[in-house]
Amino acid sequence: MSDKLVIFDTTLRDGEQSPGASMTRDEKLRIARQLERLKVDVIEAGFAASSNGDFEAIKAIANTIKDSTVCSLSRANDRDITLAADALQGASRARIHTFIATSPVHMEKKLRMTPEQVLEQAKQSVRFARNRVADIEFSAEDAYRSEEDFLCRVIEAVINEGATTINVPDTVGYAIPELYGNFIKTLRERVPNSDKAIWSVHCHNDLGMAVANSLAGVKIGGARQIECTINGLGERAGNCSLEEVVMAMRTRRDYFDLDVRVDATQILAASRMVSQTTGFVVQPNKAIVGANAFAHASGIHQDGIMKARDTYEIMRAEDVGWSANKIIMGKLSGRNAFKQRLQELGVQMDSEAEVNLAFAKFKELADRKSEIFDEDILALVSEENIAQSHDQYGFVSLAQHSETGELPQATVVMTIGGHEVTGTANGNGPVDASLKAIEVHVKSGSEMVLYSVNAISGSTESQGEVTVRLQHSGRVVNGVGADPDIVVASAKAYLNALNKLQSQTNRVAAQG
Amino acid sequence: MSDKLVIFDTTLRDGEQSPGASMTRDEKLRIARQLERLKVDVIEAGFAASSNGDFEAIKAIANTIKDSTVCSLSRANDRDITLAADALQGASRARIHTFIATSPVHMEKKLRMTPEQVLEQAKQSVRFARNRVADIEFSAEDAYRSEEDFLCRVIEAVINEGATTINVPDTVGYAIPELYGNFIKTLRERVPNSDKAIWSVHCHNDLGMAVANSLAGVKIGGARQIECTINGLGERAGNCSLEEVVMAMRTRRDYFDLDVRVDATQILAASRMVSQTTGFVVQPNKAIVGANAFAHASGIHQDGIMKARDTYEIMRAEDVGWSANKIIMGKLSGRNAFKQRLQELGVQMDSEAEVNLAFAKFKELADRKSEIFDEDILALVSEENIAQSHDQYGFVSLAQHSETGELPQATVVMTIGGHEVTGTANGNGPVDASLKAIEVHVKSGSEMVLYSVNAISGSTESQGEVTVRLQHSGRVVNGVGADPDIVVASAKAYLNALNKLQSQTNRVAAQG
Repeated sequence: MSDKLVIFDTTLRDGEQSPGASMTRDEKLRIARQLERLKVDVIEAGFAASSNGDFEAIKAIANTIKDSTVCSLSRANDRDITLAADALQGASRARIHTFIATSPVHMEKKLRMTPEQVLEQAKQSVRFARNRVADIEFSAEDAYRSEEDFLCRVIEAVINEGATTINVPDTVGYAIPELYGNFIKTLRERVPNSDKAIWSVHCHNDLGMAVANSLAGVKIGGARQIECTINGLGERAGNCSLEEVVMAMRTRRDYFDLDVRVDATQILAASRMVSQTTGFVVQPNKAIVGANAFAHASGIHQDGIMKARDTYEIMRAEDVGWSANKIIMGKLSGRNAFKQRLQELGVQMDSEAEVNLAFAKFKELADRKSEIFDEDILALVSEENIAQSHDQYGFVSLAQHSETGELPQATVVMTIGGHEVTGTANGNGPVDASLKAIEVHVKSGSEMVLYSVNAISGSTESQGEVTVRLQHSGRVVNGVGADPDIVVASAKAYLNALNKLQSQTNRVAAQG
Repeated sequence: MSDKLVIFDTTLRDGEQSPGASMTRDEKLRIARQLERLKVDVIEAGFAASSNGDFEAIKAIANTIKDSTVCSLSRANDRDITLAADALQGASRARIHTFIATSPVHMEKKLRMTPEQVLEQAKQSVRFARNRVADIEFSAEDAYRSEEDFLCRVIEAVINEGATTINVPDTVGYAIPELYGNFIKTLRERVPNSDKAIWSVHCHNDLGMAVANSLAGVKIGGARQIECTINGLGERAGNCSLEEVVMAMRTRRDYFDLDVRVDATQILAASRMVSQTTGFVVQPNKAIVGANAFAHASGIHQDGIMKARDTYEIMRAEDVGWSANKIIMGKLSGRNAFKQRLQELGVQMDSEAEVNLAFAKFKELADRKSEIFDEDILALVSEENIAQSHDQYGFVSLAQHSETGELPQATVVMTIGGHEVTGTANGNGPVDASLKAIEVHVKSGSEMVLYSVNAISGSTESQGEVTVRLQHSGRVVNGVGADPDIVVASAKAYLNALNKLQSQTNRVAAQG
């Protein structure tokens, strides 16, 4: 019988920590449901002590998810661990993931602690966490750049205190497969009680090797857990990408010979949901989930001769969910069909009133667009207007005009705290004019650092999905908006970002 | 003294072969100049026999580039090799890269040849090529899935015939670092005359391991050439990415100990040029060149505590060209400053009349936009209107209007073969209406498979750069257009794509 490989998804924690990728409680919950459908073993839902919002998100996920272990990150102190355990109280299976840095540069510059102090704190916090939860993961932050003797002492000590999973991150993305695999192997050989824990790898992609490093940690090093994120989301160049690591395991089972529980047919849906929610686009030449990854599946034919499929393809597009996404709805689709599709897409409405509101929006869209794809439905609900009636800013209507040789002009009607206001402005283009019309009343003082649009489905009639990234006082948020009218979608995205800027509180940053 | 590692860039050949990434002669020339500035050792400029356009592009590049070897791909037959050699005639240093498949599945299903026939043809073609050029690269397509004994016989034979570089591609992206490295090592040990050639790796990214596989081919296998592309452009999940492999070599010089000639400070400029030219976006969490790769450089501050830089960063953003790109031009910039900036950006104009035309467009833009960034200038010249006055379709002017509750409407004035026509249409949004207004007269019958917009620089006043991907009769083209008015940019991109659809002839597809 083959060993089992644990897939630990940290899209909602390390992924979300990426500047601009922060998500609301409802967005996190929706993605967590999709991760459960994907059958990941562990969902790291957040970092409970980092903010009230994250605490609430973890709590909601713990109370909802039945089939995957739900995990919260916590620093190595009693307060963090208590908050993590409290947030996880409702979980079927809960894990606390506590961490402390062990590399010289991190201990000295970030923690300002001696190695002995770090060792002591690691032990104490695992001991404390064990009083609350049986499943304890310990991470030695920046492990790969840590001094080996010291790292072995820390790991041995925390296993003695009851840590059941030992994570050895390459926090800064510095590793190379051969070296990283042997590093894990050496640690496992040197730590006397190493067989009492599952070993885990957590790699960053700064040099483009997160996937290969993770796999070497498993194959050469003997690790049995991989930490990864959907689309490789994460700070800087991101984390190891779940879809790549899972498909490498399957496609090269001849080499790895490990059991992976993940249902790969849910990969594409998860990828799109994460991309739409965060506004982080997936490039066309991204492995597995990029638009070109399986050229024939995205409706693209080769120039010139059409190549025989098995001469160039080592995976089938259907295996990762391409082409499964063909269900189209329209004007004539009824409320039940709509509701069922919402459920299949992992969107749960808290009340019938919410379903009704979403259905009304769906009908309104269907009047303007003949074919409604899953992406449209997800975009529709991810506008969040449904759940977030307490938003400070709301979109009402827009009129705009541009003509070569004249200054583009826009008028936006919106609500601020429930009161309707109208603003008119000129700009370089109709989008610029619309955003300036919004700023007539809002005066946010924020700076736009990114603006992008993707057509939700590939046709001239498709909706535009706009992502706007705003920065203000050192905080970065992404807003998303969708509409068949790209200028309206831009205004909605801008208002969404302004609402996020307004509502979010500062949070503590965790390990990379 | 360390060995030298040859960086072989195939952005213009394997990268361009990606559906939708095809480039014009002038676009290829511009990128070739940037690759020379980047100091890559070999520029694979195209596949001469695939189309007249590619032949002309290779010829132009061979006549222009002085500092890098210029290479053309060719199948293993006399006609292809003759065309490659003819195209390369003007080069300071020329290389012919000939290939034939050696894996059982490719020989049987694609070539319909016996192994002995393949062996004979490989020998003959290298012998033939040697009469024209001294620098001969031979690729065994799908080498990694080939039978080892047979592959050794082929390689030994072509080295005897005078092949100076032996490339061992993982054509389908199936390899794993450890296995691929050992595969190259075994081949080099088994082929008796292996020391007479430089060994090369060419990896695809289907399982996310192209970079790690390439590096293992070098470190474990002893290869001394890496084939790669800017942004990892290429069919399916793309090729090994140049920027990642180069920065891994430098950052981990302690491990690789090889000399790489590339001037890394030119990486970001190359990445942007390739992305803007092809319309293939780079995702924010892409290593080295993604907007988030060096968070602080793209104006993004961390949430919460600002971390000490060296605790989390193993490279400096400046080393790959981030923040070097700060020169801003405006209304008051003169013609000389503009011309000099064009040169620095690798844009060469064929005549003073073209410079004047570009400068007039620059002034026009400066009237509408206070700060002009390098990206704006590149977008301006990549619209191609300058060089391509023979285009079938041209943009003249546009007027559009949308208002909540009404049907968006657009009127586009354009030229068809020099004659002005006006079209008016309604649509789901102003962009849809504008494209439909164009189609009133064009009636292309093409299908839009991708639409995306990126703001060229991060401010509300920035230009929108639109990419439109059209498909017709099995051919795929990307069109790009830039304008401060997103609707105008969309119309320009659409016309650009229509021009490409119209002018391109079918071409032969090469190895992956």
